[in-house]
Amino acid sequence: MVNKMPVDRLSSTFGALADPTRRAILARLASGQASVTELAEPFDMSLPAVSKHLKVLERAGLIARGRRAQWRPCSLQAEALKDADDWLEQYRRLWEESLDRLDKYLRELQREEKENGPNDPRRKEERGTAND
Amino acid sequence: MVNKMPVDRLSSTFGALADPTRRAILARLASGQASVTELAEPFDMSLPAVSKHLKVLERAGLIARGRRAQWRPCSLQAEALKDADDWLEQYRRLWEESLDRLDKYLRELQREEKENGPNDPRRKEERGTAND
Repeated sequence: MVNKMPVDRLSSTFGALADPTRRAILARLASGQASVTELAEPFDMSLPAVSKHLKVLERAGLIARGRRAQWRPCSLQAEALKDADDWLEQYRRLWEESLDRLDKYLRELQREEKENGPNDPRRKEERGTAND
Repeated sequence: MVNKMPVDRLSSTFGALADPTRRAILARLASGQASVTELAEPFDMSLPAVSKHLKVLERAGLIARGRRAQWRPCSLQAEALKDADDWLEQYRRLWEESLDRLDKYLRELQREEKENGPNDPRRKEERGTAND
């Protein structure tokens, strides 16, 4: 699994998060450091499979490993998530606006149904178009 | 490129974001809808290559395509980023604490240097360990 193109930091962060096992490992490490064996326990997975996931997380800077040969606990490096959060931040306004619009539209619909009754054919038609 | 395992929503969102071209496409669409040709322009890329990226974004629910055959503009579906943001949110406290600790440590170091002078060998040693 050799990457020829250097992967930018943000891509390797998002890539590392694109797997439910890796996200579960991070969630476990959020409550404190753990050895590879401890991390493997809750998953029906071999140690080498878990080690592979840990390597992806380590390359992305999301975890660090202890240095002593016998006991190399993994610990979460939560700071590495900040860039991903900063990137998403730019879009927060957009999805909030979009959810506000949806909310406003649904309220409008309810209000009109109250005023005109649920069987007004005009309303039905508009709803059909909006849900298309 | 057929995925045999069904990919969970959050994994496909993070996976779609794990590429600088796809993030640039989303950034372009944040300022309004665009055709595939318009999206391809700023990148040194063939239309099929851009189309592949658009398919990944569409599968992740991050963009939608218009329905008319001739003009099928792409538009951003920013709401699809909310789950990724909610996931990161759980870790915000952790990286903020971690950055606060770093900040506190650096202030402490500056204060001690002021008090003891920069050439105190004890301080040098501690810094060496901390930067290891």
